[in-house]
Amino acid sequence: MTFKVTILGAASAKPSATRHQTSQLVNVAEQFFLVDAGEGVQSRLMRVGVNPMRLTAVFISHLHGDHLFGLFPMISSLGLMGRKQPLHIYAPNPFGEMLENHYRYFDPELPYEIVWHEVHTTQHELLFENNALEVWSIPLRHRVPTAGFLFREKPAGLNVDKEAIERYGLGVAQITAAKRGEDITLEDGRVVANGDITYTPRAPRSYAYLSDTNYSGKAVSLVKGVDLLYHEATYADDMRSDAKKRGHSTTLQAARAAVESGAGRLIIGHFSSRYKEPEVLVEECRTLFPESYLAEEYKSFEIEEKKLR
Amino acid sequence: MTFKVTILGAASAKPSATRHQTSQLVNVAEQFFLVDAGEGVQSRLMRVGVNPMRLTAVFISHLHGDHLFGLFPMISSLGLMGRKQPLHIYAPNPFGEMLENHYRYFDPELPYEIVWHEVHTTQHELLFENNALEVWSIPLRHRVPTAGFLFREKPAGLNVDKEAIERYGLGVAQITAAKRGEDITLEDGRVVANGDITYTPRAPRSYAYLSDTNYSGKAVSLVKGVDLLYHEATYADDMRSDAKKRGHSTTLQAARAAVESGAGRLIIGHFSSRYKEPEVLVEECRTLFPESYLAEEYKSFEIEEKKLR
Repeated sequence: MTFKVTILGAASAKPSATRHQTSQLVNVAEQFFLVDAGEGVQSRLMRVGVNPMRLTAVFISHLHGDHLFGLFPMISSLGLMGRKQPLHIYAPNPFGEMLENHYRYFDPELPYEIVWHEVHTTQHELLFENNALEVWSIPLRHRVPTAGFLFREKPAGLNVDKEAIERYGLGVAQITAAKRGEDITLEDGRVVANGDITYTPRAPRSYAYLSDTNYSGKAVSLVKGVDLLYHEATYADDMRSDAKKRGHSTTLQAARAAVESGAGRLIIGHFSSRYKEPEVLVEECRTLFPESYLAEEYKSFEIEEKKLR
Repeated sequence: MTFKVTILGAASAKPSATRHQTSQLVNVAEQFFLVDAGEGVQSRLMRVGVNPMRLTAVFISHLHGDHLFGLFPMISSLGLMGRKQPLHIYAPNPFGEMLENHYRYFDPELPYEIVWHEVHTTQHELLFENNALEVWSIPLRHRVPTAGFLFREKPAGLNVDKEAIERYGLGVAQITAAKRGEDITLEDGRVVANGDITYTPRAPRSYAYLSDTNYSGKAVSLVKGVDLLYHEATYADDMRSDAKKRGHSTTLQAARAAVESGAGRLIIGHFSSRYKEPEVLVEECRTLFPESYLAEEYKSFEIEEKKLR
């Protein structure tokens, strides 16, 4: 089952001829989620071969233009393309007002419904859930109300050990009961503990998106054990005091978040336009956390299935 | 002196991975004007080597998103870049309301002033004027109030014929008077008619932008003799009835506008996404008007100086 993050933009507020503002595509089991929506995101989605019509939901971390300006044009395009399926948008207040203005000036008659879910940026809440996935809000520390997002696979169901099935001569009803977590009573009256005959086939995978933010110990504690962590690193570490003032993080703060959360890999992004070659930023991260990577446009980060046996 | 139009986007409402919505850059004597502002226009300006900080004014034909969504992100970026010089924006009502909403949600403290000039889309009015140039509105026929724009060089001043200066022994005061258009009285009392010793060194150049619109005889009459005409051609001519309903034009209607206005060259654009290869559209135009060209992204159309002697 796919679990993949594709970078659609990683520049901070000032775009350039070649670098776009923050957007990411998260694919979990071929359901597509957009995280933030910098200008031009619809074209970049198409460029990575994903028609925006396929999006299930959009998650907006905060209402700064560099994370949002691409959403309204995409809303219009989906209307032109004849979308019928509702689009769920998770964003802080007052996104609803902006949406009303958009309808009023640009799309008085959209052929599909937009369902706005308010994100309470001080809460760690379950925002979205389907068979395979949960998405949780992560409170962040930026200049305006901001939340990150934790994408977490649901735990896989129990499998029953093949050897145990043979050894105890288990029937279909007993196997089904064991998969539900029940202990099994055999024909001869013996009881077999569920833990002795079942196993979890794979560990749930997870991805956390933390941008824009100062370093936050609370956020780190909420994403403990994450497989893949995106943490903004707007500046190199010599800019620590500017970063703090502007509600942003440095390379080493991002790396520290990765170390302290026990992340598998770190992606950094939201680079200030002052860094013409952001490679220097990732090098700095690697001094603290070797598994650090640059959020390069159109690059994908896949999380492999984590088989437990 | 430069007079150049650069295409920044020529797609109609639905953008694709590679084709952007309508925007053009007009350079007259190294003053830069943006005409319409489809999504992502700021990046495309940078890509053609023009920093958006250099824009003098923006002309918006109508308030549909595919001609406008790129303006608000650019307004924000200009603030981040520290623009001080006012930016003049010519657009129909209710652009002012949209601007107020933009300030409120995204840019409460811009470091520069935006001066909105309302374009009355039923009027043929002088909108903008500097030493070299006039810009006039051209009423168009679209589904919402829409105006095109006519960029017209001011007539060059009179030059005095070198041979005449020698023949009559004209002094500096007499030459200056002749340049003002006066007849000259020589020392011996003879009067030389101004027309006998002066000439206009070059004819004023002009560019007309007509989009989005049904074919309009009135618009054509207002751009008579234009050197370069941009006329939308959303559809091939077999789609004439759809074009009419949607407030758009076909290839042959654009070509007819070029023929009837006596244009030097025609650029067509605003292609429907149904045309994967818009070359077929320009071929159709050329059957009626051979000097027809495609609005290809990043292509420039220069109007050479028209020396009269």
